[in-house]
Amino acid sequence: MADKSEKTKARLPRGFADRSAEDIRAVEKMMATIRSVYELYGFEPADQPLIEYTDALGKFLPDQDRPNEGVFSFQDDDDQWLSLRYDLTAPTARFVAENFERLPKPYRSYRSGWVFRNEKPGPGRFRQFMQFDADTIGTPGVAADAEMAMMMADVMEALGIKRGDYVIRVNNRKVLDGVLEAIGLGGDENIGRRLTVLRAIDKLDKLGPEGVRLLLGPGRWDGGKEGEGDFAKGAGLNDTQAGAVLLATARNAQAGQDATVSGNAVYQEGVGELATIEALVRAAGYAEDRIAMDRSVVRGLEYYTGPVFEAELLAEIPNEDGQIVRFGSVGGGGRYDGLVSRFRGEPVPATGFSIGVSRLMTALKNLGKLDSADVIAPVVVLVMDKDTESLGRYQKMVSQLRAAGIRSEMYLGGAGMKAQLKYADRRGCPVAIIQGGDERAKGELQIKDLIEGARMSAEITDNAEWRAARPAQVTVAESELVAEVQKILVAQAADRAKGGA
Amino acid sequence: MADKSEKTKARLPRGFADRSAEDIRAVEKMMATIRSVYELYGFEPADQPLIEYTDALGKFLPDQDRPNEGVFSFQDDDDQWLSLRYDLTAPTARFVAENFERLPKPYRSYRSGWVFRNEKPGPGRFRQFMQFDADTIGTPGVAADAEMAMMMADVMEALGIKRGDYVIRVNNRKVLDGVLEAIGLGGDENIGRRLTVLRAIDKLDKLGPEGVRLLLGPGRWDGGKEGEGDFAKGAGLNDTQAGAVLLATARNAQAGQDATVSGNAVYQEGVGELATIEALVRAAGYAEDRIAMDRSVVRGLEYYTGPVFEAELLAEIPNEDGQIVRFGSVGGGGRYDGLVSRFRGEPVPATGFSIGVSRLMTALKNLGKLDSADVIAPVVVLVMDKDTESLGRYQKMVSQLRAAGIRSEMYLGGAGMKAQLKYADRRGCPVAIIQGGDERAKGELQIKDLIEGARMSAEITDNAEWRAARPAQVTVAESELVAEVQKILVAQAADRAKGGA
Repeated sequence: MADKSEKTKARLPRGFADRSAEDIRAVEKMMATIRSVYELYGFEPADQPLIEYTDALGKFLPDQDRPNEGVFSFQDDDDQWLSLRYDLTAPTARFVAENFERLPKPYRSYRSGWVFRNEKPGPGRFRQFMQFDADTIGTPGVAADAEMAMMMADVMEALGIKRGDYVIRVNNRKVLDGVLEAIGLGGDENIGRRLTVLRAIDKLDKLGPEGVRLLLGPGRWDGGKEGEGDFAKGAGLNDTQAGAVLLATARNAQAGQDATVSGNAVYQEGVGELATIEALVRAAGYAEDRIAMDRSVVRGLEYYTGPVFEAELLAEIPNEDGQIVRFGSVGGGGRYDGLVSRFRGEPVPATGFSIGVSRLMTALKNLGKLDSADVIAPVVVLVMDKDTESLGRYQKMVSQLRAAGIRSEMYLGGAGMKAQLKYADRRGCPVAIIQGGDERAKGELQIKDLIEGARMSAEITDNAEWRAARPAQVTVAESELVAEVQKILVAQAADRAKGGA
Repeated sequence: MADKSEKTKARLPRGFADRSAEDIRAVEKMMATIRSVYELYGFEPADQPLIEYTDALGKFLPDQDRPNEGVFSFQDDDDQWLSLRYDLTAPTARFVAENFERLPKPYRSYRSGWVFRNEKPGPGRFRQFMQFDADTIGTPGVAADAEMAMMMADVMEALGIKRGDYVIRVNNRKVLDGVLEAIGLGGDENIGRRLTVLRAIDKLDKLGPEGVRLLLGPGRWDGGKEGEGDFAKGAGLNDTQAGAVLLATARNAQAGQDATVSGNAVYQEGVGELATIEALVRAAGYAEDRIAMDRSVVRGLEYYTGPVFEAELLAEIPNEDGQIVRFGSVGGGGRYDGLVSRFRGEPVPATGFSIGVSRLMTALKNLGKLDSADVIAPVVVLVMDKDTESLGRYQKMVSQLRAAGIRSEMYLGGAGMKAQLKYADRRGCPVAIIQGGDERAKGELQIKDLIEGARMSAEITDNAEWRAARPAQVTVAESELVAEVQKILVAQAADRAKGGA
């Protein structure tokens, strides 16, 4: 054993978290529901490794101007750079490009898994988090994008989120691209400024139109006032240009664009694709309360080239500070026609949607749509005598219970009876089995109903109630063990169903 | 689009692999079974992140003498070293040490996930693979070890592996430690030689006793003959010492040790613990055909301190070269009393078992115990007219099918009817829905039974058979879509159940 002075400190790096049993069970359940919707839509499971060549992932993260910024990277034996994936889309693009000939096209697949961002962690902002994506690769038709939006609407309802408590918002990057071209920001030489515009618009919810106007124009101080916080350089648009951008990205923008913009071919293409998507989803019976066209949606990732989507929870639920707020985005996606093409040198259009698993789970928890109450803690067989022969006898009881499908365990610590009952309490065990020397001599054992026992000592105040209650402890013949435990578990389940203890 | 000359190459680093839909479904199913056994035993799910501080993981991998060898590591912003976990045990130890006060003790938990080894990859040897572990932490009693062995035997049978086709082998490191002490290899100054002995014994299956004897003594040439391959330095034992070690680690070693060894206290403790484990598992009804005491089991990891286990498949199945061989180990574990203590400076005894998920899946596949045949490919609605209005109509058909719980999709590519049917074939679609202009005018649609169609064209040779077959294509009113598709799917399921097409 290490002595105290030289022991290693048990701690996690910032931005990483252990998960509780409740969270794991809740996520499993939620993901099974999402999976069933993706399967219903005809998507197939796929899975790529967590490590890829850095150049295969590309650099598409927002707000990361330096190489490898935002990504965990390291060199392989042969000096090639490897990275942990920062999303599931880039590895998917690599996989499809590599296996293009043998895949059915369009290739419809879904995948879930951990992704990593080497960023500054903050409240609710982790460096490892889970995504659950669906992608359709190999078709330029916006019917594929329309389907993504419909599928996400179905996912929301399958998870128990009521109609009206969520909306899938749809826009098209080409609308913004067209505006930018029309106001003179087209061409390769303006890539940097276009990205700045994109990221400014993406902050509309957070900063409001005036804050965004500053980011579109001269720039903005993080603190909101001159000299407060860091200065974020703006895109350098003049008032007319900024006005056109803000007009085109207003939530309900439909028309009203000046002739320069509305005459732009890319803009028109974007508007036309949006109209097709709208027609398709309406024909399939998805009304505006489920899928809304919304020009303010841009999405922060650089690689989107056409339709973009966002799943937003409208329900107002408490945030981490206890304030009641609209929960906001739980997922999003869009068309990324360039990502597979990057490898193949031929156009391979693609579209996809990504759900932020932890964020959606937090939302469902707050909405009361998640519970793992159907998992019952184990029945515990207490250890009254510690010799090997007695342990063998207790072990046999546990084996009998398990053979009957009853979750159970023998107490494995070294403590006395009081500590063992405390352990059972801490685990939430429903039943304890006790056999000391006296009972053993008579071929009997005691069965304690720990739930009823707790209720009786907490609630029962008069004699009538006492008589009506189940006995909290019975003594039965050894051969009755399984039947009696089953009886108690059934009674406890009935109590739970009644909303009782 | 990138032009051909500058495109990025789509490829994976060596030792990493994409997984197929079949593999993913099979693993999901297998893991659900393992999970249900762990739950039955009263274990709770837990999950730690994939990245930890390097010093928190420690260095316990076999055959890795240089720092960080075998582990993927990188520096954080604050220059501290981070690593990808190489197993699930080290992060579990960190987690328990960090949260010791609030956890029920013994703490019984299970976890699954990816682990990483920065090693030279080879056939069936990956740098990312999945483990599924169970651990009991906070008790020195070997009843916890006995339980691990029983649980693993139950896991094997829950997965459909017949009794006799597997065995859980149990040994105790203290037996070997006692022998080494007795022959003069005790003390800190001999740590290196003891590790060499350990690793030599671990190769018993591969090299046989004579190969191991060389590794225990002067060393051995990898190729088997002097000068062939690399030379592996031996532990430098003399013949008497090597003989004592080989005697103590023979598969059925029970007695016959010379007095020097059998009088050693550590050796006696190990033998005693083994006897207790044997008594406990026999009392619970696990005979020697399920759990065998076997002195040849040592396990390669350095951190084990007491009982060690190995789950071995005895079934003889083809290996990757087509040879019929005993499949061998699919998991193992043991007591690691030092791992949590390392952080806490007080004894925190612990024991655990780890299943190699990919390896077990390969075994189950070869044994014919895995299938995902219950997943049916989607019904496909073909796209005969490509205008938005028609697409909307096809989309509506798909929505109706999905609302009835029928897995289905609209064809989303741009191809003609022949290519669409080829797509349906490639996906294994059971049914295709077709509506061209003529059918639409009459409010009808065609439903093609693609399974029956394939069977008819492949098998039917005379008229009687032809008349007995289901029609491979029917024309029905639009309103009959869902009912008719359901009818066909039911008929196909009945055929499959009969072992037909």
